[in-house]
Amino acid sequence: MNIKTVPLSNVKITGGFWELRQRIMRDISIAATYYQLKVTGRINAFKLDWQPGMPNPPHVFWDSDTAKWVETACYSLITKPDHQLREQVDELVASIVSAQQPDGYLNTHFTVVEPDNRFTNLRDLHELYCAGHLMEAAVAHFQATGSSGFLDAMSRYAGLIDATFGPADEGKKPGYCGHPEIELALVKLAKVTGNEKYLNLAKFFINERGNVPYYYEIEAEQRGEPPKPPLQVFKDREYRQSHVPIRDMEDIVGHAVRAQYLMAGATDIALETGDAELARACHVLWDDATVKKMYITGGMGARPEGEAFDDAYELPNDTAYAETCAAIAMFLWGHRMMLLDTDARYADAMERALYNGILSGISLSGDKFFYVNPLTANLVNKSLERTTWFGCSCCPNNLTRLVLSLGQYVYTTTDDALQVHFYVEGEANTAIKEVPVTIKQTTAYPWDENVAITLTMLSEAEFTIQARIPGWCRSYSIWVNDTALDTTQLPVEMGYVALTGAWHDGDVINLKFDMPVERVHAHPAVAADRGRVALQRGPIIFCLEQVDNGQNLESIVLPASSDLDASFEPSFLGGVVVLQGNAVKQDIDGWKGKLYSTHASDAKTIALKAIPYFTWGNRNPREEMIVWIRESP
Amino acid sequence: MNIKTVPLSNVKITGGFWELRQRIMRDISIAATYYQLKVTGRINAFKLDWQPGMPNPPHVFWDSDTAKWVETACYSLITKPDHQLREQVDELVASIVSAQQPDGYLNTHFTVVEPDNRFTNLRDLHELYCAGHLMEAAVAHFQATGSSGFLDAMSRYAGLIDATFGPADEGKKPGYCGHPEIELALVKLAKVTGNEKYLNLAKFFINERGNVPYYYEIEAEQRGEPPKPPLQVFKDREYRQSHVPIRDMEDIVGHAVRAQYLMAGATDIALETGDAELARACHVLWDDATVKKMYITGGMGARPEGEAFDDAYELPNDTAYAETCAAIAMFLWGHRMMLLDTDARYADAMERALYNGILSGISLSGDKFFYVNPLTANLVNKSLERTTWFGCSCCPNNLTRLVLSLGQYVYTTTDDALQVHFYVEGEANTAIKEVPVTIKQTTAYPWDENVAITLTMLSEAEFTIQARIPGWCRSYSIWVNDTALDTTQLPVEMGYVALTGAWHDGDVINLKFDMPVERVHAHPAVAADRGRVALQRGPIIFCLEQVDNGQNLESIVLPASSDLDASFEPSFLGGVVVLQGNAVKQDIDGWKGKLYSTHASDAKTIALKAIPYFTWGNRNPREEMIVWIRESP
Repeated sequence: MNIKTVPLSNVKITGGFWELRQRIMRDISIAATYYQLKVTGRINAFKLDWQPGMPNPPHVFWDSDTAKWVETACYSLITKPDHQLREQVDELVASIVSAQQPDGYLNTHFTVVEPDNRFTNLRDLHELYCAGHLMEAAVAHFQATGSSGFLDAMSRYAGLIDATFGPADEGKKPGYCGHPEIELALVKLAKVTGNEKYLNLAKFFINERGNVPYYYEIEAEQRGEPPKPPLQVFKDREYRQSHVPIRDMEDIVGHAVRAQYLMAGATDIALETGDAELARACHVLWDDATVKKMYITGGMGARPEGEAFDDAYELPNDTAYAETCAAIAMFLWGHRMMLLDTDARYADAMERALYNGILSGISLSGDKFFYVNPLTANLVNKSLERTTWFGCSCCPNNLTRLVLSLGQYVYTTTDDALQVHFYVEGEANTAIKEVPVTIKQTTAYPWDENVAITLTMLSEAEFTIQARIPGWCRSYSIWVNDTALDTTQLPVEMGYVALTGAWHDGDVINLKFDMPVERVHAHPAVAADRGRVALQRGPIIFCLEQVDNGQNLESIVLPASSDLDASFEPSFLGGVVVLQGNAVKQDIDGWKGKLYSTHASDAKTIALKAIPYFTWGNRNPREEMIVWIRESP
Repeated sequence: MNIKTVPLSNVKITGGFWELRQRIMRDISIAATYYQLKVTGRINAFKLDWQPGMPNPPHVFWDSDTAKWVETACYSLITKPDHQLREQVDELVASIVSAQQPDGYLNTHFTVVEPDNRFTNLRDLHELYCAGHLMEAAVAHFQATGSSGFLDAMSRYAGLIDATFGPADEGKKPGYCGHPEIELALVKLAKVTGNEKYLNLAKFFINERGNVPYYYEIEAEQRGEPPKPPLQVFKDREYRQSHVPIRDMEDIVGHAVRAQYLMAGATDIALETGDAELARACHVLWDDATVKKMYITGGMGARPEGEAFDDAYELPNDTAYAETCAAIAMFLWGHRMMLLDTDARYADAMERALYNGILSGISLSGDKFFYVNPLTANLVNKSLERTTWFGCSCCPNNLTRLVLSLGQYVYTTTDDALQVHFYVEGEANTAIKEVPVTIKQTTAYPWDENVAITLTMLSEAEFTIQARIPGWCRSYSIWVNDTALDTTQLPVEMGYVALTGAWHDGDVINLKFDMPVERVHAHPAVAADRGRVALQRGPIIFCLEQVDNGQNLESIVLPASSDLDASFEPSFLGGVVVLQGNAVKQDIDGWKGKLYSTHASDAKTIALKAIPYFTWGNRNPREEMIVWIRESP
């Protein structure tokens, strides 16, 4: 099929929902996160001047935080040149490169803190994970600047890693990183450099993982660690997805970010090599992850212990971990799955995460972040508040790098078709059948249901536009140059409606995805959501906050008959659609001195106001919030 | 007010619900639990022939299990002589007494396993707890047989304990047991022997507990134990209710059996001494326990970790611990509260536990037991099945001793009144104003709503009969000798209706407590029960089992409009009332491949059958069960 992404440099987001988010990130988040990298010592760590006895030694995952900042900044530069930011990036990149050792090694922690322990604890110490993020940063820097210094440095480091790790019969260590990331980074590096060695190394990491004898256990024995109890050993293996080879996995388990970075890398390998067995595993695990273990917000990994996937349908709301990075990881994996087969359910899950469980990770002000994204804030977890930084600060720069690179996920092309995966205002330049085409989207999506797609072309061409019908959408209309199409007659394949014809310069396709307020039910096996509904309009999942609806949100019951109206409030929470209608609220006062009663709670009618989930906690933090509302039929 | 219980020897349970239970316990349970005591080594432990190096050393709490068996058997003998059982008891008692050391000490574990460590670890090793249970057994044996050998032995042991523990300024150890029990036992011993010394020792234990410096920490230091982290120290204190003096407690916390045995002892002391400050604490903690931390079954202690009370309103159903012993402990405490002030809410809570969370602890066959009594059996805990015995087997003999001594809880008398607390078929002999009165109850309670009380008296006497209006009862009728009384004109004080008059031999009072099927709601703060109802009829709480209602009980929704009929099935589960009616069940099949949907589950009408909670798990164990059913208004 020869599917290709339309690269970031070709896609400009010029207005609407995402331009606002990108603007805030360019104006606020990039500086705010750089400040944190600086004051915590992460930037200066590359000077390698830490010495034993000094405070604040470079931590094992520090390099990755800085690398993601560089990557973010480069994506910003690709889409909007900024001389000052460019200088700041180049200076930091020079500092990073200066930390490279003569043999190509580049890791601040190991170089200054434990130089003798390089590559002796892949299980715990994030060494190749950091290398992977530095490689991704180097690729982005090359793409943003055309300067290859960082890329060359990381290629040298990749060469060292390749010389170190590989099949035991080649005299190499048969290891793989405790935190996957390098796999997908090596695929990027291979593509941009054209060097297949990196792809082969990624393939080795993917294929070797989970083989017996277990590398981490051999490695631990070599370090002289005492053996752990069998149950702990088993849990440790699952935590790092090293319990069985990927091909043999039937369930997605363990640390949710690791699992999904790994699967993103595995999907890359399946794509690059055409490995059908590996692709099968990617499909099985994707289904398990998104059909049994995904919050309605796209949050992934329910279990706080081990930041892990829980059992199927175990999706508690108040103790939900749903790490920002895990939702991002699903997005990154979904993008690769979409290249494997263009089924709209990938974009559906990605969109679900993007507008909800990912975006909730950042404050509207752009300088505060959530690491965990629960679906209920109550006594159990109501101390939650977005904060400027974390000790383990993977999420902030992961979120900004995703949003500032969003353009590259919007379109793909195949030989004779253009796929529109997401509805984002902006312009993209590509070519179909070698005819250059500019696609312009004009839309207030997700607040509004209309999307206008305008084609600018130098010559007429016959091709297909495959536009995704969002999974949340139950009815839609399409016009081509003001002529309404009979949508019942249009072919829809795997969630994409196909508009085939001879397209001309100036052609306009109008899409209207009806956006009623919907009540969503969860699979009956999800205990936490039984008898409850979530409110959704378009891709946006809503929530109730205490500041709008009073205390005891769990006492609110939404009658099935209650109509909810959607209205856009331009000066509320940065401009959002809110939902309003009547509900009833149970009265707690009548319960004084009683624990059980044959008399149900008295209830009074209240005016309900629901806001987009991603905006919660931006007014009065440490108050109640719920997504799943009790419903009375 | 001079309230007195009518002792067990004066109350015969002659038919109906409790005669059946007592009969099964006499015929089956007593022998079955003796067998377990025997084969596990508990009986032979009193021979003191264990030596270091031999397997199966006497465990620290073994003596208490045997003591409770003796107590149970003695209650059986008091209410129904049995020559063979008497011989078995006397033989065992002789063996127990033979294990007493010259100085009065009596504990199999410490005598043979660690003779040098007597009284050095009150915190963990149940030493005074075992002594307390042996004292209770000795009192029961004296009451059952008139023979004082065991009582004298335990008085000697109590003397040794009194010489060892007490105020530091008297040169004694200011300690108290990690597992309360001896306090209430010493009060019993004081009453039956008339020796105030034991009462004073109990008072010391109650008053000293929780004082600074903390005894257990001093004791641990003396044993050379390394100090624990501060949080652990704090948790350890709360676990054993030794964090503050009882008078300063505002919440009931920690291990639920320990907490309630302690409060039973504290209530005893408040009763015996008239200590208003202590009585206040008893009231505050009773309210906290029963108005904020009690399952609808009377189960106490929600939290498996530490077998402990959870926070207020934290009453999850599937992970409910609700240890059988903890519900029994509440019953024992409630009895003492009832003597402090005759408020029907004590008997209401006791009755709730008795018919539900206590009785669920034993199989209908009388030989298998539950230690924990969850309100939902599902994937989380569906491996639950009653078993013949436990490593820590406190519950079986605790349950039998309660049921076989039930008669003593039915009535109390004051100077000019008789209180009827529970409705139990049988006869009791007492005297009011020195006039001997026999009260006979004829009733199929709790299956039937009618209770007939017949008085047999040698002479007419004027007094008041205070009959408890059960808390579950919302309308009732009373007839005296076939004359209907106007219940609106009758004085009801703290839940007891007062019938005052000149009573004659042969007078019959008929009580009818209307028993509709009721839907019970929980306080809105109980998250697990929101949008759900429990079914109740009279004091019986019902549940649904998979064997009657199919799999996926959580998919059943009970419409508010659905009528439920109650019918007695004499040959089902030993003769129980079952509830039947229509409900709807959500269809899980339509959800294949979906996790969220705007389409609510399809539902079909099903015939619902609910059985008494206490009978659950007697047919197909390891299947689903729920108490709280989702309701649609």
